[in-house]
Amino acid sequence: MLPTTSPTTAPTLSEIVDFFRGLQARICTAIETADGGATFQHDVWQRAAGGDGQTNLIQNGNVLERGGVAFSHVHGPMPEKITNRLGLPAGVDFDATGVSIVLHPRSPRVPIIHMNTRFFQTSDGTHWFGGGIDLTPIYIIPEDAQYFHSRLKAVCDAFDPSYYADYKAQADSYFYLKHRKETRGVGGIFYDHLKAATPDEMRKHFAFTQAVGEAFADIYINIINRHRDEPFTERELAFQALRRSRYVEFNLVWDAGTKFGLETDGRTESILMSMPPTAAWTYDYQPEPDSPESFTLESLRPIDWLNNK
Amino acid sequence: MLPTTSPTTAPTLSEIVDFFRGLQARICTAIETADGGATFQHDVWQRAAGGDGQTNLIQNGNVLERGGVAFSHVHGPMPEKITNRLGLPAGVDFDATGVSIVLHPRSPRVPIIHMNTRFFQTSDGTHWFGGGIDLTPIYIIPEDAQYFHSRLKAVCDAFDPSYYADYKAQADSYFYLKHRKETRGVGGIFYDHLKAATPDEMRKHFAFTQAVGEAFADIYINIINRHRDEPFTERELAFQALRRSRYVEFNLVWDAGTKFGLETDGRTESILMSMPPTAAWTYDYQPEPDSPESFTLESLRPIDWLNNK
Repeated sequence: MLPTTSPTTAPTLSEIVDFFRGLQARICTAIETADGGATFQHDVWQRAAGGDGQTNLIQNGNVLERGGVAFSHVHGPMPEKITNRLGLPAGVDFDATGVSIVLHPRSPRVPIIHMNTRFFQTSDGTHWFGGGIDLTPIYIIPEDAQYFHSRLKAVCDAFDPSYYADYKAQADSYFYLKHRKETRGVGGIFYDHLKAATPDEMRKHFAFTQAVGEAFADIYINIINRHRDEPFTERELAFQALRRSRYVEFNLVWDAGTKFGLETDGRTESILMSMPPTAAWTYDYQPEPDSPESFTLESLRPIDWLNNK
Repeated sequence: MLPTTSPTTAPTLSEIVDFFRGLQARICTAIETADGGATFQHDVWQRAAGGDGQTNLIQNGNVLERGGVAFSHVHGPMPEKITNRLGLPAGVDFDATGVSIVLHPRSPRVPIIHMNTRFFQTSDGTHWFGGGIDLTPIYIIPEDAQYFHSRLKAVCDAFDPSYYADYKAQADSYFYLKHRKETRGVGGIFYDHLKAATPDEMRKHFAFTQAVGEAFADIYINIINRHRDEPFTERELAFQALRRSRYVEFNLVWDAGTKFGLETDGRTESILMSMPPTAAWTYDYQPEPDSPESFTLESLRPIDWLNNK
């Protein structure tokens, strides 16, 4: 009798790269349809030291003021600074591929969202998947945070019952502005260095990364549609500008992906597409007591949104 | 016969701290008078781990949209991360004191300016002065850059014929955005780790630091007065917002003082008073050929302004 399933083989680099490239296209189509007012401009680029990418940028849409959906596959010799930090031998080559997204809506009622899914390998045989999605509302609305986390939990639970709690905690820890003592937003999931010991396990990690990537557009479009038609005020726009400045601070001071990009002589415009269109700094901002602004600032800490505690 | 001069003694910490405290007050008085529309608010603060400071902030002036003049004297155990970086033994205590200034004018015709003068010592006997002034025009005007550099050269030449060339080169190298391959502005002077072997030499370094600090207000007010009454356009304001975003990038990604502050659990609002009031990011901005914007971007490189080459 013939076996009904073939033995599992590990996903190849080209299979992974093809998935990310296709994911970018699918997400851009979904986001364009939801926005209804702007389309992505496509910028194809080459990296001098090896690799290429495509940065898709949307601007001045109905919903999105500015956003980027970037695919890249870069490779070449690993900079010494980074081999040292990762504890890798000097002189190895690397491949890094993935899709990275940051979307800045026009309305302060619609949250900023970020996704990153990636695969990394080196010529000495190290390889891992990483990724995550996190949400940064200008004004925190617990029902939205619950919806967002319940969707992420469903994606995680289909693969491993431990994933959600583990990756939710990692997001709370990663998306944290130490100098402000506040989280970036309501968190989400974050995983990195997901290393596989067997082809089976690598398949599982790849399938999980695919599931996270494929869930992104539907989750975010649902959140957009909850709030896109709500009117907003000048006061809310001023608070949006302030909260966007915290987004800038996180990305430039603490984000490892941004540091990696700038240190590996990455394409600056693609790395910094995460920047908001505008931002404002106000010295020693203090919200009014019992205001929506103070509720938000008090909620910028790790919260178990699914159990409201 | 009595000696006409006493033997030189090294400046004491309290003499240095007192100078910086007085310098802050003198500069604020001069800037308020020049602005004519706003006064500094004074924020006195204590650092939990040791030390105190006063952050003076001006907002919504006639000339200045936002600016800070900060004095601080912080001390305590040196964080291990920093002893490692500086090659100091673990467990030492440190004192850091100085005056730090960033002024963001409202008009895109008036340059942003930055000054930092500081003294640093550790309990194992290491001590040094550092400082500098650099100018970041929104639109580069060679005559202003020449005036600015000639004033700085005069301050340097009164102490040492090698200072200007050396510290001008250090400013060009320090105020550089590697990821943009551009200087922050037209440079200025920058010196650090000015270590003295004798009391005489330490006096000289202190006197030089005093001279740099005392020259600041007059130099900047002269530049303000050249341009404060010029009208400006929406296009110039848009370019100002873009150039301010580069200022944010430099301070958060590359500036050692900002990193030091954030890592030593410094007072965030005082460290980040250097941020502009607003900033904007435009994807892949390209200036029109032969425009004032393209002239400025082409001039963001080390230039010998005094000899126009």
